[in-house]
Amino acid sequence: MTSEIIDKKVGARVFFKCEHLQKTGSFKARGALNSAVLAKENNAKGVYSTLYSLKQIAHSSGNHGQALAWSALKIGVPCTIVVPKNAPSAKIDGMREYQANIVFCEPTMESRESICAELAEKDDKLYVDPHNCVSMINGHASIVFEILDQVGEHIDSIFISVGGGGFASSVAFLIGTLRPDIEVYLVAPEQKELSNLLENGVQCSVSTLNTMADGVRVAHVGSLCEPILRKFCKKRVLNVKEEEIKDALKLIWTRMKQRVEPTAALAFAGVLYHKPNHIKCPLVVLCGGNVDADYIIN
Amino acid sequence: MTSEIIDKKVGARVFFKCEHLQKTGSFKARGALNSAVLAKENNAKGVYSTLYSLKQIAHSSGNHGQALAWSALKIGVPCTIVVPKNAPSAKIDGMREYQANIVFCEPTMESRESICAELAEKDDKLYVDPHNCVSMINGHASIVFEILDQVGEHIDSIFISVGGGGFASSVAFLIGTLRPDIEVYLVAPEQKELSNLLENGVQCSVSTLNTMADGVRVAHVGSLCEPILRKFCKKRVLNVKEEEIKDALKLIWTRMKQRVEPTAALAFAGVLYHKPNHIKCPLVVLCGGNVDADYIIN
Repeated sequence: MTSEIIDKKVGARVFFKCEHLQKTGSFKARGALNSAVLAKENNAKGVYSTLYSLKQIAHSSGNHGQALAWSALKIGVPCTIVVPKNAPSAKIDGMREYQANIVFCEPTMESRESICAELAEKDDKLYVDPHNCVSMINGHASIVFEILDQVGEHIDSIFISVGGGGFASSVAFLIGTLRPDIEVYLVAPEQKELSNLLENGVQCSVSTLNTMADGVRVAHVGSLCEPILRKFCKKRVLNVKEEEIKDALKLIWTRMKQRVEPTAALAFAGVLYHKPNHIKCPLVVLCGGNVDADYIIN
Repeated sequence: MTSEIIDKKVGARVFFKCEHLQKTGSFKARGALNSAVLAKENNAKGVYSTLYSLKQIAHSSGNHGQALAWSALKIGVPCTIVVPKNAPSAKIDGMREYQANIVFCEPTMESRESICAELAEKDDKLYVDPHNCVSMINGHASIVFEILDQVGEHIDSIFISVGGGGFASSVAFLIGTLRPDIEVYLVAPEQKELSNLLENGVQCSVSTLNTMADGVRVAHVGSLCEPILRKFCKKRVLNVKEEEIKDALKLIWTRMKQRVEPTAALAFAGVLYHKPNHIKCPLVVLCGGNVDADYIIN
């Protein structure tokens, strides 16, 4: 998608890749589908995952669980999601809609891990981590082929929101390999201190960020992803303020009429407020659109 | 656009024509552009219009004024909008963004009409009524050619929200002439009592509807439009409740991620709750997407 009004505001030709219109409403369907295919090829008895953060469960976007459930249903392998019993029902309903088997655990690390170990060993199911997972990272890469096919001759850069880093490292690796002339920018809430991680190896001091961009609340980048992001994007980190995310979200809602989630607006905020001057044709990945009907921009 | 989840809920293959992604965010740009072209061809000194209802100005969608201002700017003719001085500034800003000349009147019929008469006679400007206007109705018809080109072989019906009736009569007339096998359904808030008008000639007893669908708050159908709608759609009127509009809006927002305005959801509510059984492939016109960033579904 493009928008003349947004081009004028940014002072560049901006392309938007609409992953909020992807199946299940986020890019997660790409990696999840690849994971389900892998499970089937390896004769695993299914796939399983957990809601990522026990502490932040009420604020998790829930995109991963839904995408995995949908993918497993499409491919025809069973899917189990381990969910703390205090999780909000809306997130669980989304997974059940795609026939996922919900297993409740106590809201503790120990309970979750013991149930997960059981699923892996007894049931021979494949664990699919939302971020730090080869099959997820490989699957996400399909977006790069689409982007290059659709606008590869027009863009000079890609702006992408970074949470656990699975999606970002997938894009950074493949673009860096196939088209190193296209610059990949990592956009994150400033509290994440991503530059400090990539330049100095210093981990963020909190585990969960306090940001409206709920899809990137996980502060730490996966161990598989960190070296990839360091290699390809060390000097291309943009730190965004909450007010900037808010403005970007309002513009996308009111001008483009696309009801994306705040985490998608984060990437656009990188372009809107922090675009380097030499960038003339950025592509913004709108990573997802899963927001409740009553969500309001505060 | 299409959505598998919505198809499943409706029990039919539903196509959406996305006029919220049209220039200025609504179908109004079609008729307004035609009107501006007409003004230029006839050497008029510009186009002018008024915000439709003095009473309901705070609740007017403002789509017509914006569309006319944008069209005049594109075609290169001056545009004047007569606005009561108590109108909210957000609506006025939208028109000024497209360089419309705003003329304030007192919030009375007399003041408005005397200023309009002056514009017409002294300045030789063309008046463009939002509903009851040949150049608007003719211009709107371009959507029919697009629809037939895009999905003409797939659809058996078109569902359209009705306010003043300009857009609906344009579609009803041209579809009824070119493709009478496609049934055009008029969807309106029940308070409008549109069947009573088309079947019995009885006018609605109020002038402004109390509905969340702000684009169709004008209760009366234009005199040019009424006979067209009676001829082509007399038995195809669907009366929708407010709760149904709300549900339809939530579905489009959360499932399709399209931030349409309530008036667009009205047409979809017609399909969701009142679709006749023999209809298998309806097309819903999403007429616009101009909603403020802080609008919430109550």
